[in-house]
Amino acid sequence: MRAAYITRFGGADDIRTGRLPLPVPGPDEVLVRVDAVAANHVDTFVRSGAYATDVRFPFVVGRDLVGTVAASAGRFAAGDRVWCNSLGHAGRQGSFAEYAAVPADRLYPLPAGVDPGQAVAVLHTAATAHIGLFRTAGLRPGETILLRGAGGGVGSAAVQLARAAGARVVAVDRAENAEWCRRCGAHEVLDRADPGTPAAVRDLAPDGVDVLWDCSGHHDFDATVPLLARGGRVVLAAGMGARAVLPVGAVYTRDISLRGFVISNASAADLAASAEGINRELARGRLTGRVRARLPLTEAARAHRLLEGRESTAAPGRVVLFPGGPL
Amino acid sequence: MRAAYITRFGGADDIRTGRLPLPVPGPDEVLVRVDAVAANHVDTFVRSGAYATDVRFPFVVGRDLVGTVAASAGRFAAGDRVWCNSLGHAGRQGSFAEYAAVPADRLYPLPAGVDPGQAVAVLHTAATAHIGLFRTAGLRPGETILLRGAGGGVGSAAVQLARAAGARVVAVDRAENAEWCRRCGAHEVLDRADPGTPAAVRDLAPDGVDVLWDCSGHHDFDATVPLLARGGRVVLAAGMGARAVLPVGAVYTRDISLRGFVISNASAADLAASAEGINRELARGRLTGRVRARLPLTEAARAHRLLEGRESTAAPGRVVLFPGGPL
Repeated sequence: MRAAYITRFGGADDIRTGRLPLPVPGPDEVLVRVDAVAANHVDTFVRSGAYATDVRFPFVVGRDLVGTVAASAGRFAAGDRVWCNSLGHAGRQGSFAEYAAVPADRLYPLPAGVDPGQAVAVLHTAATAHIGLFRTAGLRPGETILLRGAGGGVGSAAVQLARAAGARVVAVDRAENAEWCRRCGAHEVLDRADPGTPAAVRDLAPDGVDVLWDCSGHHDFDATVPLLARGGRVVLAAGMGARAVLPVGAVYTRDISLRGFVISNASAADLAASAEGINRELARGRLTGRVRARLPLTEAARAHRLLEGRESTAAPGRVVLFPGGPL
Repeated sequence: MRAAYITRFGGADDIRTGRLPLPVPGPDEVLVRVDAVAANHVDTFVRSGAYATDVRFPFVVGRDLVGTVAASAGRFAAGDRVWCNSLGHAGRQGSFAEYAAVPADRLYPLPAGVDPGQAVAVLHTAATAHIGLFRTAGLRPGETILLRGAGGGVGSAAVQLARAAGARVVAVDRAENAEWCRRCGAHEVLDRADPGTPAAVRDLAPDGVDVLWDCSGHHDFDATVPLLARGGRVVLAAGMGARAVLPVGAVYTRDISLRGFVISNASAADLAASAEGINRELARGRLTGRVRARLPLTEAARAHRLLEGRESTAAPGRVVLFPGGPL
């Protein structure tokens, strides 16, 4: 089969495309013909070796896929449209290939009528958003969430999922993302660069916001903790190098918590629970992501270069590739 | 009735002792004859006005009491031994008096055979410990908890309750508190002043501790976050003025959370849940606190001076007073 893979840790240009043997599915795995994949930032960390995880060479890169079951196995029948968003780490080979052997407990049906190339652009960010919103922050209907970096991949998935869950969504981002945030369902959209934004948040939520998630990873707790309600939750899932000062008294006297997570630590059960919520919204046509480029598998190295900013495009959104050729 | 009360916010010496009218219990209240009360640091903040809460003058100070039901009401019969730990704030008069009208949902039976003067010394700290350990940190049997300041009021209650819940308890405190920490049930006791203590924690919990609670309010996250397991929880409930640097990446990449709370924000349901756990351990004789002074009600001002450190005693522990005379 054709595959994009590495034989050692290295740069984007160490990704080769060529032929590898077809994977042989184990007893709890399903052989899937891959229709569409998306490139993730975390893929670049696995490729470079920066993210320590169990990798066996030759190693197929990539976490996410939408595909078609190639051979019936367990609850899956040949021809079923399916998806996975947890390949390519922790000992599992990746998705950037014509075929993948996917553990059955990490494989989910794709709702009928959903476009694979469009869906694959949101599967990873939406899982991150779902786990962050519901498992980690415990967001409930009627609560107010303040999302900074709301126009990004995780941010815009969070806007859509939070809105669908009955929360009130206050989105903050650069002005050029305002229209996209509104299309995602944000009730209020504020300009990150406007010095009046914190005051506007206070006006919109005089008792404070229940959940704060800065998807852009800029943590200024002196500015944000006063915007939180008693019992407020701050999601921490970005800002790797940040060293933020925590005003401890302002946090604990108001029962505030800061809750960190990464999707790489999520269990198969966590991911399956988020997949149920994602599928519900995909089926309703209420969950989508932006696509910045659609590439053939042979352009896998370029996909990584795009993510690493060494090749610029004006368009925001995900890089999607089609291992079987354009759909 | 005799009572210790204030007619304005002020210092310890503004506490008067004298006669006030007997409280008239409302429809959901129980009239209780007060046997023993304990002085809390938070009482001094309410008295001074530093802690903003609904106070009506003349205001009887004090949160905690062990008493005897004076008149049957609802599920309580005259003569029942009872306790409460949430008077004296949020519009409720305090406990430092011969009688108190206690909301029925904040009144709990005292298990038979428990000494009132001994019990009252631990009711508030144990409730803080219980809510912090179980509601806030979600401590589970078999987990390891690292308690710093383990010999203090909240710390030693937490040692006892965590041990009783089947957790492994690593206690850190000054050397002079080591024996007390051991008596409370700590599995391991380490000297706070020993530079080898962090390495000793790593040896004791190579995969990291599940819960960290620094009851002394000294937050050094660069030192403590590496001691935590993936999914570890840090309880924040002390260190009002602390501005601690948070290594954001080290927190979120290991699914760590920091969870703040104060008991003053706890609901009547939270307090009742903690009271069940406290009563179970009181009945088994496995929950106790140290008493530094036993005073008559007329010494209420002195009790506050002791808490505020303006009068020293060699003994650690709680200041307990007896509004009806010594028991």
